Amino acid sequence: MKSHTVYRTFNTPERRAFVRITEDVQQAVDESEVAEGMVLVSAMHITAGVWVNDDEVGIQVDAMEWLDKLAPPSWMQKKSRIQKDLSPDPGDYRHHRGGEDNGDAHLKNMLVHHQVIVPITEGRLDLGPWQQVFYCEFDGGRPKRLVIKVLGE
Amino acid sequence: MKSHTVYRTFNTPERRAFVRITEDVQQAVDESEVAEGMVLVSAMHITAGVWVNDDEVGIQVDAMEWLDKLAPPSWMQKKSRIQKDLSPDPGDYRHHRGGEDNGDAHLKNMLVHHQVIVPITEGRLDLGPWQQVFYCEFDGGRPKRLVIKVLGE
Amino acid sequence: MKSHTVYRTFNTPERRAFVRITEDVQQAVDESEVAEGMVLVSAMHITAGVWVNDDEVGIQVDAMEWLDKLAPPSWMQKKSRIQKDLSPDPGDYRHHRGGEDNGDAHLKNMLVHHQVIVPITEGRLDLGPWQQVFYCEFDGGRPKRLVIKVLGE
Repeated sequence: MKSHTVYRTFNTPERRAFVRITEDVQQAVDESEVAEGMVLVSAMHITAGVWVNDDEVGIQVDAMEWLDKLAPPSWMQKKSRIQKDLSPDPGDYRHHRGGEDNGDAHLKNMLVHHQVIVPITEGRLDLGPWQQVFYCEFDGGRPKRLVIKVLGE
Repeated sequence: MKSHTVYRTFNTPERRAFVRITEDVQQAVDESEVAEGMVLVSAMHITAGVWVNDDEVGIQVDAMEWLDKLAPPSWMQKKSRIQKDLSPDPGDYRHHRGGEDNGDAHLKNMLVHHQVIVPITEGRLDLGPWQQVFYCEFDGGRPKRLVIKVLGE
Repeated sequence: MKSHTVYRTFNTPERRAFVRITEDVQQAVDESEVAEGMVLVSAMHITAGVWVNDDEVGIQVDAMEWLDKLAPPSWMQKKSRIQKDLSPDPGDYRHHRGGEDNGDAHLKNMLVHHQVIVPITEGRLDLGPWQQVFYCEFDGGRPKRLVIKVLGE
């Protein structure tokens, strides 16, 4: 059995971003020389996620707008009733009592999930035609790490 | 280490469907002759998901109605205020500018997650008493692929 | 390749609870003597989840309140309009026709996801500085099982 571990650090200038990392994941697989196996792609922070979807900007803007309705940031002006309804009942996230302002990002981490596994077949990421791997930043502007772990033979 | 890869193509007549695939996953494990390991079950499309839950029709109808509230299809008449509130602010999904009408299915893919891993113990799927594996179609009526990857010994 | 399987049974006095299990997962890895690999942590029930996040009580209270808005329990007094809007249209979950009252817990299982994979590097859980593993109980007060499966070398 072979294994290979790669860490990547993101420091997005924007507070939130979708960063395509399919090529980084394939490179980790290449370095591992694994032909048949799995690669785990997992955020090491609790205000980020990993998503496999289309590299189409419309989907990404749709998704971020929708995530901001479902898990409203307290630093964002509430544009709609749904954002008020889904905001925490004390008026602000309890998590913010410690001085944080990223309570929404913890809930987005839950919705999106912080990791995916990509199968490796004949040395390639075994993805469908439109599947790309994205690192999803929900509280950026500072260094955040991701681990890529390849396992197989 | 043994590995085994199986692809399955779905072409559901309905636009949306829950298709039980526990038996297909067990069959892939049987073919692999893996006794101890893991099996990844992963949709290869970005408008589908995989869910482990009970094979009980009430849960499935509840779940689909609820998913249609949280991620409203633009082709469905909005029955409730919540569907209007959670629809995209431009009135339609930005993704639809390219001619698509499945913007909601991309968000459902995010909610449900596109994959699960089932542990394999003594050659059997190590599932709880009510756990069944379902392929979740959110934009059917055309061929869609799923990959089942077994790894272990 | 080494593998090791551990089952843990929870019987929380509360109906819902976040139970920290990072140390249990590390113990299973220690017992396995795996240095490089992955460990799957997976609820064996369909009304529970597994979440990796901060061990901070504010986040947990925020998260449970929010989950109760998104997937409202029928046994809980509806405190807000959003809970009425997101409740099932027949007035109660169809799943309850069989005598159950945990329809919301099945939806929370979908939102939270029932499993995570933790990478193992040099014999340790390869987690970020604030990442802890939690078993998420949404219908407790009875014995519920979780499987921890270690794979690697």
